[in-house]
Amino acid sequence: MSSIIEDGKKIIQESIGAVLPDAAVRRTLNGTGLCGRIVLVAIGKAAWQMAKAAYDELGGRVSAGIVITKYDHVKGPIGSLELVEAGHPVPDENSFAGARRALELVSGLGAGDTVLFLVSGGGSALFEAPLVPPEELQEITGQMLAKGMDIVSMNMIRKRLSAVKGGRFAQACAPARVVQIVLSDILGDPLDMIASGPAAPDTSTCVDALAAAERFGLELSADAEALLHTETPKQLDNVESFVNGSVRELCAAAAKAAEELGYEPVYLTDLLCCEARDAGSFLGSVAVSHARDGKNLAFIAGGETVVHLTGKGKGGRNQELALAAAEQISGHENIAVLSVGSDGTDGPTDAAGGIVTGKTRALLEAAGLDIQAVLKENDAYNALKAVDALVITGATGTNVNDVSVALVRAQV
Amino acid sequence: MSSIIEDGKKIIQESIGAVLPDAAVRRTLNGTGLCGRIVLVAIGKAAWQMAKAAYDELGGRVSAGIVITKYDHVKGPIGSLELVEAGHPVPDENSFAGARRALELVSGLGAGDTVLFLVSGGGSALFEAPLVPPEELQEITGQMLAKGMDIVSMNMIRKRLSAVKGGRFAQACAPARVVQIVLSDILGDPLDMIASGPAAPDTSTCVDALAAAERFGLELSADAEALLHTETPKQLDNVESFVNGSVRELCAAAAKAAEELGYEPVYLTDLLCCEARDAGSFLGSVAVSHARDGKNLAFIAGGETVVHLTGKGKGGRNQELALAAAEQISGHENIAVLSVGSDGTDGPTDAAGGIVTGKTRALLEAAGLDIQAVLKENDAYNALKAVDALVITGATGTNVNDVSVALVRAQV
Repeated sequence: MSSIIEDGKKIIQESIGAVLPDAAVRRTLNGTGLCGRIVLVAIGKAAWQMAKAAYDELGGRVSAGIVITKYDHVKGPIGSLELVEAGHPVPDENSFAGARRALELVSGLGAGDTVLFLVSGGGSALFEAPLVPPEELQEITGQMLAKGMDIVSMNMIRKRLSAVKGGRFAQACAPARVVQIVLSDILGDPLDMIASGPAAPDTSTCVDALAAAERFGLELSADAEALLHTETPKQLDNVESFVNGSVRELCAAAAKAAEELGYEPVYLTDLLCCEARDAGSFLGSVAVSHARDGKNLAFIAGGETVVHLTGKGKGGRNQELALAAAEQISGHENIAVLSVGSDGTDGPTDAAGGIVTGKTRALLEAAGLDIQAVLKENDAYNALKAVDALVITGATGTNVNDVSVALVRAQV
Repeated sequence: MSSIIEDGKKIIQESIGAVLPDAAVRRTLNGTGLCGRIVLVAIGKAAWQMAKAAYDELGGRVSAGIVITKYDHVKGPIGSLELVEAGHPVPDENSFAGARRALELVSGLGAGDTVLFLVSGGGSALFEAPLVPPEELQEITGQMLAKGMDIVSMNMIRKRLSAVKGGRFAQACAPARVVQIVLSDILGDPLDMIASGPAAPDTSTCVDALAAAERFGLELSADAEALLHTETPKQLDNVESFVNGSVRELCAAAAKAAEELGYEPVYLTDLLCCEARDAGSFLGSVAVSHARDGKNLAFIAGGETVVHLTGKGKGGRNQELALAAAEQISGHENIAVLSVGSDGTDGPTDAAGGIVTGKTRALLEAAGLDIQAVLKENDAYNALKAVDALVITGATGTNVNDVSVALVRAQV
């Protein structure tokens, strides 16, 4: 019989594997008939991987295309596709040039043609075509930050100052059909927020945007003011969207992998957003409360927890979650808790997360480490490392938040 | 059809009702044959209620007895029982006198007789017979606190300085049978910790206690030192224990009440101990993730969360949990989250807890209240009060921690 740790590692491998950009794109393309000329536009941190998978699938059928991603994220040529590396998190001249070129590529298409639009996190900065001079956009952004404007209000204004955000890129593609495949890095998959929603109807209105500008006392040029009066699209009949690759799928894949290993999956949530250590404590409490049910159970929680720093150690939210869970499950040899970031990089570390069992706390104590003291110092990385409880996957090329799983075995 | 709020309030009423001391004692006595002479000893904050219920059930069969509870907790005479009010959380002369009297009452009993021992939280202070002079016990306690000794080590030493703690009261009852009914206020119901375990075998040893005394550099008299060498009972063949009235039963009763109202209960845990607001966020996330399952669901989590104060407002852990959940479930009109302390007193307030729905956040905003700002000020009481979301039960007479429930309806 495999150990509970081996089971946990298998679940990590399978669940991340299911949300790799390549897998996500291939799965969607297999179910979608693309017609006419195909123009491929890929934006975001996973743009290269998504474009590569699509190009491998569609091959010669792609008539033109562009990939706009972060610096150092292009891994090689992809057929005839144009490759652009640009600024993130602050857009730069390449972000503007890339977006302008994408707008050129999709102009003049007919109703029978298709734009395959591949979207991943980071697209807001990497893909931008400002309708005001770049320096003016920068100045307005500075004002919004200085005046403490909330992110929702900022986005309302930014969308109206852009030729691609807030559904305008899809509008520019019309009458061509836009098939959008999205790798979601935002909980709940709000299409108008991921990459600022170039192919998603905007839910905010000019009235909202003007009210926000007035409330925060923005000082705008006449041109910018006029743009705030220009409405974003509220309906986009030429767009079909597929969110394929999201924390929900990450959780579903974890559930499937757990089931194949003989655990009954209990799906808790894919919207986890509380403090990491408290999520670990909660999940550990759930596992221990079911430790004597006489069943193999897998409790699954996805999302993106937060860490409020109090110390100067090394770690990440998944490592803190796992470490806090170790305290709760201590002594229960039939329990393991794992937590990993799907991007393979948890906090500023080379670990994807951690995996702990009922023995972990005792091992830490034997190494002279107290869990509460380690958490206070935010030093989960070194503590987990000392007891061989880190999960190392390397950068995975995807980014759809995190998954945490508590495994309970009927027998040790 | 009842509203989701009405359902929530019904669940609160039913679950607290099931763990009232009277109900707990009656349920146990109905299943337990008591033989011979019966001596009743009730200790703790719920001692009067437990003794009253037992006396009403057993009537003239009780030959003698004593009730030792907190000041102002005696609600009237109970037959021939002696009633003592004593110090809590610091034991006083009445605590010592009450314990001495209880030891007298149980001395000289035969193997065919029964001591009905009713235990509730607070018993550690209310029921004490020190084996060193009281002022020496006080001095040692002062040393232990000043040297930062952990609670586990303190209890090892305290048990050895007492004639009733650590199983010694049950030992004094022998050869009579001891039937112990426990209302648990500690997660996991550790019998040797509730009221310092007067009728529970002690899991710590003299070796442990001496090592702790040495590690923390306690300065002890020769008499006290000798007591640390005297072992506590490791087995008590004359004791039968019934934990009846615990957070597990509180959760079970909440599940039963929810089921009767048409919800499928999903029992998560009875060991919740993380930060209150994060537990609320987690529970809210779970509910929202199941908002579209098309089922009536009740997610149940019991335990005792904690609050780290950052502000100067008024509130309690259950109120903070509910308020934090309101943020998560906002907009989902088919969801409600409630959290209550079974004692009816959440923090230093007159509320038992809070109950919120998908509308609560909007109502708070309309009242000019921002959830994060309220939590930062720890002012959940006033915020929930402003939107009629407090749960007021009055003091319930029981104390078995808290229960939180997230209700999800298939339809609004």
